[in-house]
Amino acid sequence: MQTKKRETASAGSREALLDAANKLMAERDTLAVPISDIAAEAGVNSALIKYYFGSKNGMLLALLHRCLAGVVEELEAHVRRDMPPERKMRYHLQGLIRTYFRFPYLQRLLIAMMRDEAPEEAHRVANAYLRPIHHAYERMLAEGVAAGVFREIDPRLFYFTAIGACDQIFSARFVLSHVHGIDTIDDDLRRTYIEQTASLILNGLLSRD
Amino acid sequence: MQTKKRETASAGSREALLDAANKLMAERDTLAVPISDIAAEAGVNSALIKYYFGSKNGMLLALLHRCLAGVVEELEAHVRRDMPPERKMRYHLQGLIRTYFRFPYLQRLLIAMMRDEAPEEAHRVANAYLRPIHHAYERMLAEGVAAGVFREIDPRLFYFTAIGACDQIFSARFVLSHVHGIDTIDDDLRRTYIEQTASLILNGLLSRD
Repeated sequence: MQTKKRETASAGSREALLDAANKLMAERDTLAVPISDIAAEAGVNSALIKYYFGSKNGMLLALLHRCLAGVVEELEAHVRRDMPPERKMRYHLQGLIRTYFRFPYLQRLLIAMMRDEAPEEAHRVANAYLRPIHHAYERMLAEGVAAGVFREIDPRLFYFTAIGACDQIFSARFVLSHVHGIDTIDDDLRRTYIEQTASLILNGLLSRD
Repeated sequence: MQTKKRETASAGSREALLDAANKLMAERDTLAVPISDIAAEAGVNSALIKYYFGSKNGMLLALLHRCLAGVVEELEAHVRRDMPPERKMRYHLQGLIRTYFRFPYLQRLLIAMMRDEAPEEAHRVANAYLRPIHHAYERMLAEGVAAGVFREIDPRLFYFTAIGACDQIFSARFVLSHVHGIDTIDDDLRRTYIEQTASLILNGLLSRD
């Protein structure tokens, strides 16, 4: 009974730390949030970060896994839907941008972890998430080509185009404030960005025959 | 005479350090190159980094200024060319990707400097380079809309789409190696990426009327 209770508390603290890291990184628009702030936000002792994750990077890696696992699960369910290829791709792109609105640090965290912080984990992350995302893109594009609505395109390269186009406003957020004086993305700008970016990529894909 | 000679040598060492930083960051595909390696590559004493730039970040900022000054100068000359809007935009996008092939670290360096390393410089960089780039995009898009060939689009948001779409293969280069087993972008892949990405964005822009 005692053991059960401690395990539940532990799992709760672990998730609370990931929730707190997510919240503060999104709010402050940076990966560089001090662990003391994350522990305070979670209402736990900062020593628990070392206990659960080994290090701050271990915690960030766990957060990356949690985010990407959800993204891949949703994407795979979406790809299996019976839906015309244009609509399937449009909904996917709109959903991708909404994912970045929820986790604006996601692409930067992926790049930081894969490049510099956890290179030994890179292959595991690639196999668990990036490879399934690639297969989903292959399938969505092949369906559109087979239906005669998409142009032939290299899915490996399309992945970069789509991810980069949808993410950049989050990675380079400072351009909005420094060039356009926009500090907050309001609902109007949010809708316009989702609609315009998804339409641009989708129109770019469409066969002109 | 002596002074003249010393000034020339100084300017030479300063440029040699920037050239060396550029070369090693491009070759190693990372911003994290030790200053001792940069000084050795330039054939100068590493103390000169502090002398010319104040710090490693000062040197990286100087390199960012040098890259972006060239990019903006070329872009402004390109925008003034008398050329149909579709071709002008296509050439711009192809040139943008070629710029990233020359400076594969450029977008990551911009993001790192603007976000974390030199926030007090961010406004200066924004005014000197990002604002002129935005005006060039406004003008290229307006020409296409006036000619009836481009759809109406928000140029502020188009900037993010285009930059992100063209850059992502460089920022997330690890996807190529870990998912596709590609360690070197050969000429074929390079041509395909330039052609496919520029066409996708351009086709996305075209009016369907």
